[in-house]
Amino acid sequence: MKKFVNDPKQFVPEMLEGIALANQDKLKYVPDYNLIMRTDIPRDDKVSIVQGSGSGHEPAHVMVVGRGMLDAACPGDVFAAPPMDYVYETAKLVASPAGVLLLVNNYTGDRMAFDMGREMAEAEGIKVGVLTIDDDVAVKDSLYTVGRRGVAGNFFVIKAVGAASEEGADLDELLRIGQKVNSLTRTMGLALTACTPPAKGSPLFELGADEMEVGVGIHGEPGRERRNLTNADAIVDELLEAVVTDLPYDSGDRVALMINGLGGTPISELYILYRRAHQQLADRGIAVGRSYVNEYCTSLDMAGASLTLVRLDEEIERLLEAPAETAIRIF
Amino acid sequence: MKKFVNDPKQFVPEMLEGIALANQDKLKYVPDYNLIMRTDIPRDDKVSIVQGSGSGHEPAHVMVVGRGMLDAACPGDVFAAPPMDYVYETAKLVASPAGVLLLVNNYTGDRMAFDMGREMAEAEGIKVGVLTIDDDVAVKDSLYTVGRRGVAGNFFVIKAVGAASEEGADLDELLRIGQKVNSLTRTMGLALTACTPPAKGSPLFELGADEMEVGVGIHGEPGRERRNLTNADAIVDELLEAVVTDLPYDSGDRVALMINGLGGTPISELYILYRRAHQQLADRGIAVGRSYVNEYCTSLDMAGASLTLVRLDEEIERLLEAPAETAIRIF
Repeated sequence: MKKFVNDPKQFVPEMLEGIALANQDKLKYVPDYNLIMRTDIPRDDKVSIVQGSGSGHEPAHVMVVGRGMLDAACPGDVFAAPPMDYVYETAKLVASPAGVLLLVNNYTGDRMAFDMGREMAEAEGIKVGVLTIDDDVAVKDSLYTVGRRGVAGNFFVIKAVGAASEEGADLDELLRIGQKVNSLTRTMGLALTACTPPAKGSPLFELGADEMEVGVGIHGEPGRERRNLTNADAIVDELLEAVVTDLPYDSGDRVALMINGLGGTPISELYILYRRAHQQLADRGIAVGRSYVNEYCTSLDMAGASLTLVRLDEEIERLLEAPAETAIRIF
Repeated sequence: MKKFVNDPKQFVPEMLEGIALANQDKLKYVPDYNLIMRTDIPRDDKVSIVQGSGSGHEPAHVMVVGRGMLDAACPGDVFAAPPMDYVYETAKLVASPAGVLLLVNNYTGDRMAFDMGREMAEAEGIKVGVLTIDDDVAVKDSLYTVGRRGVAGNFFVIKAVGAASEEGADLDELLRIGQKVNSLTRTMGLALTACTPPAKGSPLFELGADEMEVGVGIHGEPGRERRNLTNADAIVDELLEAVVTDLPYDSGDRVALMINGLGGTPISELYILYRRAHQQLADRGIAVGRSYVNEYCTSLDMAGASLTLVRLDEEIERLLEAPAETAIRIF
């Protein structure tokens, strides 16, 4: 296994400790519940925003805690939902009179943990909303879901509700905004290689030297089809067709376009994909209003990428433009 | 070859086109000379800052063009220096009465191209300064250099002179600042896997399943030693010892600490390395004033990382904190 790791059991705690050490003025790590939270919340006038999920998708979600994004993230172990009592303890730690909004990507394990964590928190009088994200168009009812999976489009929901919560939006308003963004967001991904979980030490699945997995999930779940590798433009055309026709996005629309790396693909290749997607959208009469080319939701060291579109309106674009801070940054 | 690529010959131009399309308001791509430049320069009162190098190290340097960073980048093909006439044409395009500062990582091919490009520009009356960066402590006189190699520490030189140039510093002052930052910056890297250049289609060198290359160069050049893979903490301890003792950094120093991914390593693992480095610096009485955990200077899809320290003083810290914009970003 070619990884920077000590004890695989300590992979997540050591990463979280690193995040907190690199952001000591703004973030803290709470080892008892394996969570990362802002040091300046809860605030009485602000709904606290929390997301949890399995680890291995970094920067999602533990590295997008910060002003205008998440107030806390409670990750599970690699590719494992967080324990329900950790969700509950996280909700308690960030609880504000304005309430707590729990964001959940649609995987059965995560939904169960968050539903139970919510019940436990509500039993203590905490006001809780739950919002489920399911932007992946590849498959319905997958290996680990009923319905569609939540993947990189999740970033836009976090960004929008994070910004609105800083402006003082109440829990109902945040649920409306989050549901709207989710309803206008679609993603599809593609893997060139499998990923290797630290505790397994070998690739999670087999993919031949000339094969790619179209519509792959972020835990290596099967997608729509496994077939021979094609070139970058053909790959973009296929992802784009699947995404555009699903909502559908129409001529005259203005969109955010995200090319998300899955962990092992260099950013040079992501811009080659971006180029084609931008050009093909222009040919369809769809204008790119905002561009996102980086890693947002990965699958450990998997080589691959996903393409996300969000249909923009004035409200969404304003919220996406609002200032924000995260552990992941350049400067 | 598991890459998103069309024609390998078009790898760099298509990437540059993507960068420009994603930043249409701020950057432009000039296909004739394979360069990326800001749309709002040259400015009469500002020295223009340019860096070139081989491609394959992204985000360095084509993705760090922007306000407070580079004004232009003229890359060569993958792992190849830019042609001297492209350096010259770039200098002409960005030439300002205040002059042009050319930043060069210390590789023989790059230095030759920049020295000749400088002569051609000076022959036309353009005021040009050249600053060489050589932060890599691993080896002296390597495969492609006389003296030390320039690697990820380069980011700090760009950031400092970019900020100072926005404040109106003249060419001599920028040379002083850049030389100072370079003189206080040290880096060492380590590879877990080789990288695969698109035009070659296979790994550039062989590294056994249990081996690592300590002190690797960003083109896969041999480092200090090839030996059996150890755990993350032991790797950090070795890199840190080599870097700390080189300047040396002493108890009481305040530093910037960068953990730079080499392209194929997920950010989760970079934070595991960061944790140990931060703790070990604290044990040595060295305080981390600024943290950088991301990809800054890569080697295509190589799994690996480098560790950089910069000794901070008031001037450097102020320049590193100044606002800046680049093509690579999160929001």
